Amino acid sequence: MNNFTFYNPTKLIFGKDTIPTIAKEIPAGKKVLITFGGGSVKQNGVYTQVTEALKNHEIHEFWGIEPNPSVETLRQAIALGKEKKCDFVLAVGGGSVIDGSKLIAAAIPYDGDAWELVMKRDYSQGHTLPLASVLTLPATGSEMNAGAVISNKTTKEKFAIYTKTPVFSVLDPQTTYTLPEFQVSCGLADTFVHVMEQYLTTNGQSPLMDRWAEGILTTIMEIAPKIKQDQNDFDNMATFMLSATMALNGFISMGVTQDWATHMIGHELTALHGLTHAHTLTIVLPGTMWVLKDQKQEKILQYGQRVLGIDIDDKDLAIKMTIEKTESFFRSLGFKTKLSENNITQSTIAEIEKRFIQRGVRLGENRNVDGPVAREILEKVM
Amino acid sequence: MNNFTFYNPTKLIFGKDTIPTIAKEIPAGKKVLITFGGGSVKQNGVYTQVTEALKNHEIHEFWGIEPNPSVETLRQAIALGKEKKCDFVLAVGGGSVIDGSKLIAAAIPYDGDAWELVMKRDYSQGHTLPLASVLTLPATGSEMNAGAVISNKTTKEKFAIYTKTPVFSVLDPQTTYTLPEFQVSCGLADTFVHVMEQYLTTNGQSPLMDRWAEGILTTIMEIAPKIKQDQNDFDNMATFMLSATMALNGFISMGVTQDWATHMIGHELTALHGLTHAHTLTIVLPGTMWVLKDQKQEKILQYGQRVLGIDIDDKDLAIKMTIEKTESFFRSLGFKTKLSENNITQSTIAEIEKRFIQRGVRLGENRNVDGPVAREILEKVM
Repeated sequence: MNNFTFYNPTKLIFGKDTIPTIAKEIPAGKKVLITFGGGSVKQNGVYTQVTEALKNHEIHEFWGIEPNPSVETLRQAIALGKEKKCDFVLAVGGGSVIDGSKLIAAAIPYDGDAWELVMKRDYSQGHTLPLASVLTLPATGSEMNAGAVISNKTTKEKFAIYTKTPVFSVLDPQTTYTLPEFQVSCGLADTFVHVMEQYLTTNGQSPLMDRWAEGILTTIMEIAPKIKQDQNDFDNMATFMLSATMALNGFISMGVTQDWATHMIGHELTALHGLTHAHTLTIVLPGTMWVLKDQKQEKILQYGQRVLGIDIDDKDLAIKMTIEKTESFFRSLGFKTKLSENNITQSTIAEIEKRFIQRGVRLGENRNVDGPVAREILEKVM
Repeated sequence: MNNFTFYNPTKLIFGKDTIPTIAKEIPAGKKVLITFGGGSVKQNGVYTQVTEALKNHEIHEFWGIEPNPSVETLRQAIALGKEKKCDFVLAVGGGSVIDGSKLIAAAIPYDGDAWELVMKRDYSQGHTLPLASVLTLPATGSEMNAGAVISNKTTKEKFAIYTKTPVFSVLDPQTTYTLPEFQVSCGLADTFVHVMEQYLTTNGQSPLMDRWAEGILTTIMEIAPKIKQDQNDFDNMATFMLSATMALNGFISMGVTQDWATHMIGHELTALHGLTHAHTLTIVLPGTMWVLKDQKQEKILQYGQRVLGIDIDDKDLAIKMTIEKTESFFRSLGFKTKLSENNITQSTIAEIEKRFIQRGVRLGENRNVDGPVAREILEKVM
């Protein structure tokens, strides 16, 4: 096991009808900037619950944080927060709203421009306003981690920054009942691949973390078809919501190496073709598994056996079945897992290879996924 | 799934040679009361590492916190801390030292007597000094939870209190190499039963928490024989240490009911016969499983199948095999799992039944373990 430091002080308030607790969790007298995405929280009743709970607080609303939140949009929220002297930020929405609000909470008390903070990349020791969240879309884990991904439309850049974890996050699974089916599929796939990035690496680093990662993978595979059948089952949606949070809050990465090559290659597909993030992951992961099947052999076999129940002696066949079954799972969620099905051609692969070479990118737990390997991975899923 | 609130702000600093990090984790200028148990930390080098790391801090040492820490002993440490105006407490040792230090950290800034704090039971909102720990004995989870069990020799009482989690805890698995074999067995058994108290209850509350609990149980069963063979294997001792912390820090109890009847009955065996805590658990748990096998049927079968690999259709036989295999595991750790083997007779069972009836005790996830049921449980393991 590798040395590690674990620290996650987010208070998780989970369950039915928990949104009203924000009234006492946010100290009296705070001037609260509430941040939203589009209008879905007005349809599903979350907006009413939040504003009703905070009727004795001074609140200011900012609407319109978009998917892949841009610094251009966030600057407007920051200006509002500065003008109204807000000293608390409450994000209400999914991962994009929470990510964007992490930058807002850091930039309101900061004198310079918000993009300067993004370029620092690690702002975990910086001064920020307290941030909390009411989560409505299980997927990114942003409600219980310190990361945020922020885009710059002007410079066409997109970077991850590390700041503070939310002081508290409220997760009421009932808020997920009205999510579009595609967003639920994305959340399930995103959760699954988050776990894989922390699990499908070097073998034998932590038997306990392996079990916990496999526990999330197994659970997601068990509940996915049930959720497809009935998106209003409280227990299944609660399990989905809890799994998504636990997939990226540090609980399964203690003492183990991580990969993230699939994510980084996927980001390029989003940048070049606008494919939804989770969709890119379902395309790239099987390719990563195929190309790195020797390096990851023991872990792929372990995953196949313990999660998928593939228990045969022929290792090559077991690996083949394991990768195919993983891809089938993604297809069962409704994703088209081949590049060609999404009208992505060789020229895109060439462009990604070129970008990686230019940037000197070396990804994965062994830092051996460079431009040419990324090409191999993408060609495998053509 | 039940509603829950999860909050665990302890910073976990885990791995090889991590003790020196306390130098920067404890703010400069703090007057540190360092608390110890017996002298084992002088033999294994931990004492030297701690005092070397804190050579630029003002430190005051208190020695002699005993197993099942008593308020009588702790009052002496509290007096020292008050006299020296200490404003930080560092516990160096196992669960008893950390438990005792939780009361010390609460009582130094308190004007009344320490036992008053114990009688409050919930002091989580009270003012305490910051407490940190250097753990040397994996077992209780006290290094990452808010609980402490404190005894009063004068009144012959023993109560759990809830205060604050440590601000940080340092876990270097190398500190466990020199532990007596019996203490390692106790730590393994204690960890195992902590998980069972949170797992072997109502079925179907959280599929994810089930998997994580089973993950710890499986891991403990896998590493126990390896540790018996070689107590100096870093990875196995690291897995043991991590498992013990994760078994009782709230990570596997989200949204599920808990039992703890085995622990409470076990406490009586310790009180009446001086049996070591973990030893009592290995005696009582099989009895609890036998007597409550109908109520816990689905969970026992799931545990038998997933953790022990017992996969047969005959439910009665599967339950029998599951309980027997659990008991065999405890015996493999060196515990005598029958009351008669420990010279405990019917008169003790009668005394425990009487005490439970007098106190109106009703334990377990369904609050149906009262005096007569405790008698049944103990008679089953005579």
